[in-house]
Amino acid sequence: MGLIVQKFGGSSVRDAGRIMNVAKTVTDTYAAGNSVMVVVSAQGDTTDELIEKAHEINPKASKREMDVLLSTGEQISIALLAMAIEKLGYPVKSLTGWQAGFVTDSTHGNSRIRHINKERLTNELDKGNIVIVAGFQGVNRYDDITTLGRGGSDTSAVALAAVCHANLCQIYTDVDGIYTADPRLVKSARKLDEISYDEMLELASLGAQVLHNRSVEMAKKYNVPLEVLSSLEKKPGTVVKEVTDVEKLLIKGVAKDNRVARLSIIGVQDVPGIAFKIFSALAARKINVDIILQSIGRDDTKDIAFTVPLDDKEEALEVLDGLHKVLKAHEILSDDNVTKVSIVGAGMATNPGVAAKMFEALADANINIQMISTSEIKISVLIEKKDADRAVAAIHEAFAV
Amino acid sequence: MGLIVQKFGGSSVRDAGRIMNVAKTVTDTYAAGNSVMVVVSAQGDTTDELIEKAHEINPKASKREMDVLLSTGEQISIALLAMAIEKLGYPVKSLTGWQAGFVTDSTHGNSRIRHINKERLTNELDKGNIVIVAGFQGVNRYDDITTLGRGGSDTSAVALAAVCHANLCQIYTDVDGIYTADPRLVKSARKLDEISYDEMLELASLGAQVLHNRSVEMAKKYNVPLEVLSSLEKKPGTVVKEVTDVEKLLIKGVAKDNRVARLSIIGVQDVPGIAFKIFSALAARKINVDIILQSIGRDDTKDIAFTVPLDDKEEALEVLDGLHKVLKAHEILSDDNVTKVSIVGAGMATNPGVAAKMFEALADANINIQMISTSEIKISVLIEKKDADRAVAAIHEAFAV
Repeated sequence: MGLIVQKFGGSSVRDAGRIMNVAKTVTDTYAAGNSVMVVVSAQGDTTDELIEKAHEINPKASKREMDVLLSTGEQISIALLAMAIEKLGYPVKSLTGWQAGFVTDSTHGNSRIRHINKERLTNELDKGNIVIVAGFQGVNRYDDITTLGRGGSDTSAVALAAVCHANLCQIYTDVDGIYTADPRLVKSARKLDEISYDEMLELASLGAQVLHNRSVEMAKKYNVPLEVLSSLEKKPGTVVKEVTDVEKLLIKGVAKDNRVARLSIIGVQDVPGIAFKIFSALAARKINVDIILQSIGRDDTKDIAFTVPLDDKEEALEVLDGLHKVLKAHEILSDDNVTKVSIVGAGMATNPGVAAKMFEALADANINIQMISTSEIKISVLIEKKDADRAVAAIHEAFAV
Repeated sequence: MGLIVQKFGGSSVRDAGRIMNVAKTVTDTYAAGNSVMVVVSAQGDTTDELIEKAHEINPKASKREMDVLLSTGEQISIALLAMAIEKLGYPVKSLTGWQAGFVTDSTHGNSRIRHINKERLTNELDKGNIVIVAGFQGVNRYDDITTLGRGGSDTSAVALAAVCHANLCQIYTDVDGIYTADPRLVKSARKLDEISYDEMLELASLGAQVLHNRSVEMAKKYNVPLEVLSSLEKKPGTVVKEVTDVEKLLIKGVAKDNRVARLSIIGVQDVPGIAFKIFSALAARKINVDIILQSIGRDDTKDIAFTVPLDDKEEALEVLDGLHKVLKAHEILSDDNVTKVSIVGAGMATNPGVAAKMFEALADANINIQMISTSEIKISVLIEKKDADRAVAAIHEAFAV
C-alpha cells in the first residue's frame, strides 16, 4: 500500500498486445491498493520513424522543432495505454509532459528537469485515477516543448517518484534485473537482489546500460528506491538503493565497455604543467578523460596516455593538434581497438586482494593489460578488444560471483 | 501587405514533397511582405491510422483519450512544415493548439472554440516569425486536450483570422475554387470568382463540401474574407465574402445531396397541433428536418412527408414510432432512394422565373419531382436517386451558368 511509479520502455508498449500486458501489470498494482503513476516511452520504432520523416525534409532541422515532433511519440503511447486501462474498467487519465507539470531548462533535445508542478498529478491521484505520464518530455518556461535526451523516460519516472515521495519506482525493461555480468556472455552470471546507487552508477557507465546514469544519479540524490524488473515475467527484479544489505558477494558485477579509445602522446617535454594544459583543454571541450597513464620520464621527455569515449576521439585529437606547439610531442597516436573491463563492488576499496585476484585471472587467461585505473568501488583495465569477452568470463569465474 | 492566414489540409502535407511545396507557398507570401500564420491538418491518412491503433486496443475508448491520441497528427504536421520552412531559410515557429491559445469547451471530439489567447501568437508575429498552428485542436479550461470535430482545421484557420484581424484567410485544397456544379459531373461547370457567405453556406450544406459550414458561419459572423484555392496550382481561387459584386450570373451553383431520406406519415388525424408534435419531438433529438410537404386533407386524415439527413433516418423512425398513439397514422414509410438537387443564388428570391426555369429543365429531362422547397437563396427539389446526375447537368445547362 503506497504510491508506486512504474516506467515502461518502448519495447514494452510496441504493439496492442504488449500494451494490454502493461495495462494488466498497472491495474494489478492498483487493485492491490496502491496509488499508481505510470511513465511510458514512445512505441517501439516510433521515434526512429519520426526522425526519418524529419531528415527527409530537413536533416538540419532545429532542435526546437525536433522536440515538437518527437514528443508526439510518447503522447501516442499514453493515450493508447489509458485506453487499454479503460478497457479493463479502471479509472485513468493520461497526461503529456506539460500537463503533468514537467518544467525543464531550454536545452532542446537534452533538457534537464527544473521542477514539477504537481497540482494536476496529485489532483488526479486524489480522485482515484491511475495517472499515465508521457516520459522524456516537458516544457521550458516559455511553454515550448522540450525533450530530455537519452534515458529521458527513466529520468521522468525517477523525478516523478522523487517529487511525489513515491514508495517505489519500478523500471520495467526487457531484462529481469541487474546481473553480475552480461548473461549472454557469461553463463554463470547471477541476478542481484540489491545493488547500491554508487555501484549501479559505475556499472551503468561501463556499458551495462539497463538504467541511464542520469536517472540513477537523481534516484541517489532524492533517495528514491528503484527496482529494475521484467515487463514480461512476473518476478522480483533488482532493487537499487542507498545501502544494500551486507552480502557475501565482494563484487557486484563485471562489465565491459567497447566504446572507448586510447590516445597516446609520445615524447612530450617533461616540464611542469604539461598534464594540466592537456586535460584542461579537453575539459573545456567537455571531453571526459578516464584512465590516465603517465610514463616515468627517461630522458627529458615522457609519454602520456589516456582513454576517452569513442565518440569524442576525433574531437580529442583536434584538441591535441591545437596544442602541438605547447606539447612539442614526437607523435600523437590513437587506438580504438581496445575495451575497458571493470569490476564494481562497494567492498573493494578495503580489500587489497581484489585487484590482485583480477589481474591473476587475466594473466591465467593470457590477456595483456594495457592500462589500469582504480576507484573506491571500481577497478578498470584496458585490454585489446578481441580479448574482451574472455576477460569478462575469466574474471567472473575467478570471483565466483 | 498585411496579415494572411493560410490553411492546408491533410492531402496538401501528405509527404515530404507536398510539405516542401506548402513551405514554398508560405514563404512566397511572407517574402512578399506579409505576416503569415499557417494552419495545418494531420498528414494524409495519419488520423485514420491512429483511430485504427485505438480500435485495436479499445473500440470504446473515451473521447478524452481519443483527443490526446488524434491531436498528435497535427502536431507532427506543424513540426515537419516548420522544418521545411527552416530549410528555405525563413524564421518560423510551430505552435500546438494549446500553445497557440485555443481554449474550447469540454465536448471531446467535437469541441467549440471559446476564445483564443493570442499573446503568444502576436508575440511570435512581432518577432517576424512565420507561425505554424496545429489545426483541429485546443484545450478546455482544465488543460485537457480537445479536438474540434469535422472541418476542424478550417474552423481553426477562420478563428485565427478573426481574432487576429487578418486581411485574408486562404483555404488551400485539392480543388482550385468553388464551382457552379461538380466539375466531374458537369463539363460546363464554371469556377466562381466570388460567392457570398450565405450562398456558400447553402452550397456546403448541399454536399459541395469544399468548406465546412462551421468555418463559413464563423467567417460570416466575424466578416473574415475567405479564399478557396488550389495547393498545387498557382492561380486565384474563389473569394467568399459578405456581399459579392453584381454578376450576370443569377445562380451561383447547382448541387446534389445524396445523404437524405424521405419519411412519410400516411393517414394521420387531421387535428390541430399534429405537425407541432411531430417536429418538436424530432427537434428534441436534434434531428434537422428539411423539405416538408403536407397533403391537403381529403377525409379526416392527411399525409405528412419530410426529409432528414440519412444518418438520422433510424432515429427519426424511432421518434415517430414513439408518437404512434398520438399520430394514429395508417402507415409510416421511409425512402432513401432519393437525392436533393438544389440551385443557390442571391438573386433568386426576387426573380420568379428561376423556379419555373428549373422545373422546366427537369420536365424536359423527364425527371419527376417528388418534393419542392424554396428559401431566399435556394430552391431544392427531391428526386429519385438514379436521376441525380442528369438533373444537375440539365439544370446547369438551362441556366448556362
